[in-house]
Amino acid sequence: MSNKKLEDLDCPWCGRGASLDITGCRFVLCPMSGRYIDIILDAVKQVDTRKIWHTTDKLSTIYRGKRIHVTDAVKACFVNAYQQDVHMVMEATFSKGCPGDTDADSFLSEDNVLMNQARIADKHFPVLCKFAFYPMGMDDYIRHIAHIANLAIERGVYLESSHYATVLQGDVHDIFDYFDEVMKYAEQNISHYILEATLSVNSPTK
Amino acid sequence: MSNKKLEDLDCPWCGRGASLDITGCRFVLCPMSGRYIDIILDAVKQVDTRKIWHTTDKLSTIYRGKRIHVTDAVKACFVNAYQQDVHMVMEATFSKGCPGDTDADSFLSEDNVLMNQARIADKHFPVLCKFAFYPMGMDDYIRHIAHIANLAIERGVYLESSHYATVLQGDVHDIFDYFDEVMKYAEQNISHYILEATLSVNSPTK
Repeated sequence: MSNKKLEDLDCPWCGRGASLDITGCRFVLCPMSGRYIDIILDAVKQVDTRKIWHTTDKLSTIYRGKRIHVTDAVKACFVNAYQQDVHMVMEATFSKGCPGDTDADSFLSEDNVLMNQARIADKHFPVLCKFAFYPMGMDDYIRHIAHIANLAIERGVYLESSHYATVLQGDVHDIFDYFDEVMKYAEQNISHYILEATLSVNSPTK
Repeated sequence: MSNKKLEDLDCPWCGRGASLDITGCRFVLCPMSGRYIDIILDAVKQVDTRKIWHTTDKLSTIYRGKRIHVTDAVKACFVNAYQQDVHMVMEATFSKGCPGDTDADSFLSEDNVLMNQARIADKHFPVLCKFAFYPMGMDDYIRHIAHIANLAIERGVYLESSHYATVLQGDVHDIFDYFDEVMKYAEQNISHYILEATLSVNSPTK
């Protein structure tokens, strides 16, 4: 623990910003089972991370790289962790463009060939998802949020608007495809965004 | 599922806004144990919710009301769910001021007497927390974020800055006191904010 002021620290608010095209995701897997350690470690281990930068700490796993490879890897980790008999939640923060981001801790692959998609393409299961999108530093952020909610309706993954979130429902691939579409839109229209999602599978609540 | 456009729906982006002083929190408890259903239901049931509006759906529990009563209730639910031998994660979105919020679904108690604090005050355990704060609709949002990170340093709960989050560490009461302090600052300085936190206890990772 430190009692220094933030200006003295190597912090993400010091206004450097990344010059590279880095999308990132920090996520936590929560399988509600006594076997959670094996489920998490196996899932993380099975992800092909050759086209992204990655690290796992006590709180979460972080992937950084090209948008499509980050989405591919996070989806793969979630699909790998899925067990038919286990209620599981994943909390994921996708982000790009933080003024305090750096070029460090990243790997940008030149090509667009997804490393995990082929191996998980045939695995399907329904996901319920609490979703929020935050465009930073803009007066008219609500316009972008409305556009992104409409995208969910168009893609058939919109269930309802609720307090502090949009609720999405759909096959795991459709949910992650939507995330990728949202981030593609954001890259073109918003300098700094956060996509915050909490995904749930096999909830015992009817 | 709906194929209507969002303008046709009763949605949170329709620009009404609440006229009442409503802070809210939507949170998910994830005890990584085969006993998760009992742990969650017992924890939720034990919270004294007489001074807030509350509902629990398939995805999460929502509390809405006066800031101090919402913080008190969320902390109580987390403390109630804590088990010495169970790794648990709570994902919580606190928010106030969304232009699409409504006065509905709220209860604003007149007094400031906390309903849960006395019963949980003696329960202490260390928490590791991924924390992010999003001031919406402002050019200079980074200034507020830096102020809030400095508050964490001053209060001794700041561990480090990391990709897409500040990492907090401290006793459960210090962590929630910090959240409340952040939201108090936000009420005075920011029209719409989101405080996003993922709290972790008893992680087996060293």
